Amino acid sequence: MQHRNETEERTRVLAGRNPVMEALRCREELESLYIQSGAPKGPLGAILNKARESGVPIKEVTREKLTQLTGIDTHQGVAAVLSAASYSQMEDIYARAGEEPLFVVLCDEIEDPHNLGAIIRTAEACGAHGVIIPKRHSAGLTAAAVKASAGAAVCLPVVRVSNLVSTMEELKKRNVWITCADMDGESWCSLDFTGGVALVIGSEGKGVSRLVREQCDFVASLPMRGQINSLNASVAGGIILYEMARQRLGIKAR
Amino acid sequence: MQHRNETEERTRVLAGRNPVMEALRCREELESLYIQSGAPKGPLGAILNKARESGVPIKEVTREKLTQLTGIDTHQGVAAVLSAASYSQMEDIYARAGEEPLFVVLCDEIEDPHNLGAIIRTAEACGAHGVIIPKRHSAGLTAAAVKASAGAAVCLPVVRVSNLVSTMEELKKRNVWITCADMDGESWCSLDFTGGVALVIGSEGKGVSRLVREQCDFVASLPMRGQINSLNASVAGGIILYEMARQRLGIKAR
Repeated sequence: MQHRNETEERTRVLAGRNPVMEALRCREELESLYIQSGAPKGPLGAILNKARESGVPIKEVTREKLTQLTGIDTHQGVAAVLSAASYSQMEDIYARAGEEPLFVVLCDEIEDPHNLGAIIRTAEACGAHGVIIPKRHSAGLTAAAVKASAGAAVCLPVVRVSNLVSTMEELKKRNVWITCADMDGESWCSLDFTGGVALVIGSEGKGVSRLVREQCDFVASLPMRGQINSLNASVAGGIILYEMARQRLGIKAR
Repeated sequence: MQHRNETEERTRVLAGRNPVMEALRCREELESLYIQSGAPKGPLGAILNKARESGVPIKEVTREKLTQLTGIDTHQGVAAVLSAASYSQMEDIYARAGEEPLFVVLCDEIEDPHNLGAIIRTAEACGAHGVIIPKRHSAGLTAAAVKASAGAAVCLPVVRVSNLVSTMEELKKRNVWITCADMDGESWCSLDFTGGVALVIGSEGKGVSRLVREQCDFVASLPMRGQINSLNASVAGGIILYEMARQRLGIKAR
């Protein structure tokens, strides 16, 4: 009836010390590493070091959670979720922009993979040069997100960073003006988006986090005429991204 | 990890002849009636008549599908899915508009309840007077859709019609200009949306159906600058709905 086709969205999971270590050795891209909390760290030491080296987010979970995630109970306290598309580097975004003023999207802890996928799809369609997500508290390039992106996650650079605020500082040095979508800001179509721009899209529940909002140059708001005073994150992001695209393409509005 | 919280979205289902007949008698709103294909129609005759009278969509499914839907195998060949919010009538939309020029959204076979919910949420937020969906081949006001609407499905009239094309003819008699979002149309921000307007949003896979598109006065398109040449239905709808809202509110764009 109303279930998404789960087989198409199934995330690839590895269980056990050897499979996970092999994946790390062969530089398979890992979405995250799951470690059983309280498990002796000794046998997992090499895996943890390798994961830290490669910048893979590490999450501690219960034994039950690991069993549920992997579907077996012989997981030896460790599992890894494989990425369904490759991450890029900031340099890939800069290369894609070339001589154009930068146009990037920052996702501030978007946790729903369908929303993340829809944002990547819209970013690719409107001509943005890349999408940046944080390593923690964020959906990643899992099968569900890549499917929701309609494949855009494979074409467009998606970069995973440790600290969104540092990345915002780096972008500012490259003449990027950063706007977040939030309440109590200026009208979304009154801001000048013709230069280098970045749009920050806040999480579904909490909106844009304080530290990130403080780094923004502008806050763009949409009129809310009803009783529900917020939009789905990917819809709100899409509306402002297309206003940015309109101005950058020099399309006149009535 | 990345599963939606299914308990919150669980759809209420009734199984068996007596419970379903009682629900119909008490005028509980039914999303759809499921009948086992090939089952003797005799014992179900009264239920079928009552459902037709009330305009409830009737679907024939296999015995296995019914068992899966209801979670029991003693369903007697009949089940009903209850709506999670009430449907309205066209008159409710006209009443909500009052003296304002009409502003409505038509969903042409949107099958994903999360997309339908997001569209209803955006419609409510941007000041539209109602959302119209067809009875067949469409997601309805199930728990998943109402949750994705953030409750907007309870505030805003949502009307279920047998024939979208007849409804479009009715809207035209009320001075509504109908625009669909599709490819090969005019730029979304060059059209005049200041009078009575309706936006048709096509389905995720097939876009706007031919008969519906033929009834549209305008086709609005968004620039596609990437390799993926379409957007998520609720995102594309949201972008055009906010352009309609911008013009209706007299907000100047740069």
